[in-house]
Amino acid sequence: MKICIVGSSGHYVYALRGIKEDPHAQIVGISPGCEGENIERLYSQVNEMGFASVVYSNPIRMFEDLKPDIAVINTFFYKNSELAIEAMKRGIHVYMEKPVALSIEKLEELKSVWRQTKVKLSSMLGLRYTPHFWTAYKLINENKIGRIRLIHAQKSYKLGTRPDFYKHRKTYGGTIPWVGIHAIDWIYWLSGKKFKSVFARHSRLYNNDHGELETTAFCSFVMEDEILATVNIDYLRPATAPTHDDDRVRIVGTRGILEVLNGKVYLLNDTTKEVSEVSLEKPPIVFLDFLNEVRGTDKCLVSSEDSFYVTLASLLARESADDGKVIEF
Amino acid sequence: MKICIVGSSGHYVYALRGIKEDPHAQIVGISPGCEGENIERLYSQVNEMGFASVVYSNPIRMFEDLKPDIAVINTFFYKNSELAIEAMKRGIHVYMEKPVALSIEKLEELKSVWRQTKVKLSSMLGLRYTPHFWTAYKLINENKIGRIRLIHAQKSYKLGTRPDFYKHRKTYGGTIPWVGIHAIDWIYWLSGKKFKSVFARHSRLYNNDHGELETTAFCSFVMEDEILATVNIDYLRPATAPTHDDDRVRIVGTRGILEVLNGKVYLLNDTTKEVSEVSLEKPPIVFLDFLNEVRGTDKCLVSSEDSFYVTLASLLARESADDGKVIEF
Repeated sequence: MKICIVGSSGHYVYALRGIKEDPHAQIVGISPGCEGENIERLYSQVNEMGFASVVYSNPIRMFEDLKPDIAVINTFFYKNSELAIEAMKRGIHVYMEKPVALSIEKLEELKSVWRQTKVKLSSMLGLRYTPHFWTAYKLINENKIGRIRLIHAQKSYKLGTRPDFYKHRKTYGGTIPWVGIHAIDWIYWLSGKKFKSVFARHSRLYNNDHGELETTAFCSFVMEDEILATVNIDYLRPATAPTHDDDRVRIVGTRGILEVLNGKVYLLNDTTKEVSEVSLEKPPIVFLDFLNEVRGTDKCLVSSEDSFYVTLASLLARESADDGKVIEF
Repeated sequence: MKICIVGSSGHYVYALRGIKEDPHAQIVGISPGCEGENIERLYSQVNEMGFASVVYSNPIRMFEDLKPDIAVINTFFYKNSELAIEAMKRGIHVYMEKPVALSIEKLEELKSVWRQTKVKLSSMLGLRYTPHFWTAYKLINENKIGRIRLIHAQKSYKLGTRPDFYKHRKTYGGTIPWVGIHAIDWIYWLSGKKFKSVFARHSRLYNNDHGELETTAFCSFVMEDEILATVNIDYLRPATAPTHDDDRVRIVGTRGILEVLNGKVYLLNDTTKEVSEVSLEKPPIVFLDFLNEVRGTDKCLVSSEDSFYVTLASLLARESADDGKVIEF
């Protein structure tokens, strides 16, 4: 299984994690995805793994020379969908950064090429593979909280100093699609329901000279069956905090309440009497399941359809936040 | 200071708490506020406190006979504003259940009578007087988290079996005005900012035969200075849970993050490095400050204006939830 990695501005480490567990996967080439993208760290990590990968300066030439089975794409965000299309058109399966596109037009183009080329595509919604979110998913599917009625999800990040392409909507995409998309994905994945409408807002104030980057946002969704869901997003986690992020979700069902907090899972239901911490389950290994889907021996936890749908939801939420209007799906 | 209590369907215990601390306050009369309202528990509590209060069946007659300084009003929710108006028209100060009205028309009428009669009015937004919320308020005013940018507040209650008047919008008012109003008040009080717009939704599904009562809701507010705020409300807390309610608020500022959870307060800011539990401050005593405001020696923590404004916000949120439309304040 020959793999090329394009860029290192996103979560290519997910791919490395899966590759480490697969004796037949090899990284044959790496390349920046944009002019000015520094891939030194990627280069040294790939070397450390023992792969004598060819380094290209042009990803298209790399695709044509090396004819990989899979392209891992995570460059400056605005270029990801374009390069994914180039890969798919050459029959190369794609594992790419989320959101899979920064506009609905680009998303439609990507979907259309995917449909025509029939390659496999998945995206870096990698938090599904963490023990805490995976355990929450299992508990819900074991009906521990009954029917889901209300969800609140939180993404809180340190801002630090971000690369320049974060400072422009055109190259960054926005905080709802970049950060909020994970929370939007949990809501969709954990509930198993489609979105009906969204209302969102965001603010660029106090973004510490990060141009158009939004510092705070909320999204509020109505889903099928009148399930209600809200999201809070911020880049205001203090620099001194013990972790980079503070991911949370609280899911209220007809039989109980489930929470993910500090990498742990807490359950309160009609059998527990007290809030109890639940033992974490072992999740599938990120990207390894995509390798196996390409082989035809497994199904990837993050499907192409999920990648498209969650991207769409985050783009519609961004549009709602820009315009201050409710948007129906 | 002569006090009459009308009804016992709300939080009259707040008044009892303040009266216990005031040697000059006495409960001279009690009465149901509506036909069919059982005030036996109120009667025995007032007796236990050593007051030989006269029991009336008609609150208006009680006002006219006893000419109290203050009427404490907490009957079936739809009657509270009407009885408050009757009291004010007789020059009686009013301490009443929140929301202070179940419709904007009634709220306007109440405000108009209040303006004309110049009596004092406060409402049972009693959670401001809990050590945890009071401590959060103090910390914010000591600038521990800088400028507030994002707030999420939660109200989660056990449903149990509620009296019949909860089952009709007309008599109950709705879950956003009845339960959510506290969370809306925290957002307003803790931020010190006005609301600019609201979008809310609610659902009656799975309300266990409680007619029109909404089981779940969210509200999302934009405030002055682009402060964003969301609220989650539910009646789905399991019957076996250790407490009736699960009140929370998380406030993200430019310098830190403050949380109220399980009756405790947690702070993370640029001086703490870890999330730290903050010692609780002693709050003012509920209703005692209203007694002193009536005497002219203190200011009540919950002003008339706050009572009106937070009621307005909850009624506009309910309207938004009914219509699925964004409402500007």
